[in-house]
Amino acid sequence: MARFIIIAERVESGRLTQEAYEHNKTVPIFQRVRAELAAGAKYITLNTEPSEDPATLMAWGTKLIQKQFGNVPLALESDNIEAVEAGLKVYDSSIAKAIVNYADLGRHKDFLKLAAGYDAMCICRCSRGEIPENNDERMAVCTELLEEGLTLGMNNDDLLFNPVFLLTKGMQEKQEETLDAITLFHDMGLKTTGGLSKVADGAPKAIRSVICAAFAAMAMQCGLTTGILNPLDKRIMETVIASDMIKNNILYTDKILRDYLADEKNRFKTE
Amino acid sequence: MARFIIIAERVESGRLTQEAYEHNKTVPIFQRVRAELAAGAKYITLNTEPSEDPATLMAWGTKLIQKQFGNVPLALESDNIEAVEAGLKVYDSSIAKAIVNYADLGRHKDFLKLAAGYDAMCICRCSRGEIPENNDERMAVCTELLEEGLTLGMNNDDLLFNPVFLLTKGMQEKQEETLDAITLFHDMGLKTTGGLSKVADGAPKAIRSVICAAFAAMAMQCGLTTGILNPLDKRIMETVIASDMIKNNILYTDKILRDYLADEKNRFKTE
Repeated sequence: MARFIIIAERVESGRLTQEAYEHNKTVPIFQRVRAELAAGAKYITLNTEPSEDPATLMAWGTKLIQKQFGNVPLALESDNIEAVEAGLKVYDSSIAKAIVNYADLGRHKDFLKLAAGYDAMCICRCSRGEIPENNDERMAVCTELLEEGLTLGMNNDDLLFNPVFLLTKGMQEKQEETLDAITLFHDMGLKTTGGLSKVADGAPKAIRSVICAAFAAMAMQCGLTTGILNPLDKRIMETVIASDMIKNNILYTDKILRDYLADEKNRFKTE
Repeated sequence: MARFIIIAERVESGRLTQEAYEHNKTVPIFQRVRAELAAGAKYITLNTEPSEDPATLMAWGTKLIQKQFGNVPLALESDNIEAVEAGLKVYDSSIAKAIVNYADLGRHKDFLKLAAGYDAMCICRCSRGEIPENNDERMAVCTELLEEGLTLGMNNDDLLFNPVFLLTKGMQEKQEETLDAITLFHDMGLKTTGGLSKVADGAPKAIRSVICAAFAAMAMQCGLTTGILNPLDKRIMETVIASDMIKNNILYTDKILRDYLADEKNRFKTE
């Protein structure tokens, strides 16, 4: 089994990118990226919203961050397809392919073709636009996007199927089915992903991390291969490392978690 | 789905019971039980080892703790079958049946009959004596003990099948199969249990709780219904509550976890 892959979720990066661009304030965005990488992220999300010229900003941000961090892999996230394309145009894939976040069968149905055209990976949100009704819809969208991706010449490893995680607060009775969707995709040999923070949205701040971490371990047990999450959330990251050891994805050593816990102050410092 | 049930693991209770008996020092044992119950345990483990007269001690301890805590349900744990029987003889099942910990197909093969004779529940350790080789052995022992229990007139709900959890350190490649065993038992409609602390045995103290909590969430996702664990380990208990909410076993409220986190100082005080 391969190690669980962390896609650092957007954390005000649209605003940070905008400020870096307009006011030459690159320090905050560099600090954020550095902290996310130190905490274990493999991909950094670049998001350009809100912006009046998202395409210019995405291209500029892609070059800026990749230059500063040795062509670090990026996930490009925008509802504006031209913005994502502008990022892909200047993206350097010498370390890893870019990830387009996201394609679906709703407003984002042209995004898969875009990803294929630039030899990027693509997050496939298993929805026709809104929250998927049930696993019949998730599976139908999954197979349709898989078929489309393969027809476009993509490898199935380039597609990350996202069952669309839901709030525990208010929709707890739906969580079992969402976790089952991961098992279904996993059993098909597909890679999966999802936004883990969503699971705790609406819950009080103090308990969000507890819910996210528990859900992360449960989802990894179902076969989740990639997570869009906040790597600066220590509890989630510890849980992901422990789950990776339990799943035999990484070699157990006392050191790996002990160092992670001990290095807290340095790792999570964003100043 | 039913709420996950906590069996407080033995934490020096043999020594505590012995001291209570010999020197009339009941305060430490009462403090321990009170803390475990406050933290969410449903069953308290009573263990009498090491002792020269475990049967006398088990009977005395059963009466002592049940009298003090309103006939609190107990799990009686001993390698000495007479000791377990002595506890069962005086056990008051007005709140819940006792749990015999444990029967297997090795040295403990007479324990299931004992449990049946006293209308107690029984933990069925799926092993012929040592660590089970693989899931073929676990499943063979499970079906044999299930058959025996039903023949003895027990209800399958009275049997808690324990796949025997293993160390992550040194045996990490075995964890997936152990978790699969829980899924197998769960799919047969059986109740399951296991010693969660075992999973982190041998790991440095600082990281044990992280490994146990991750494993607990993963095992609950597989269908684990009961855990033998240390309820004074805050991280495990928080994870169990969050997992119960994600699994829709208990109603989501902001309050349940927030109060749990906030009440830490009071809850985990054993003085």
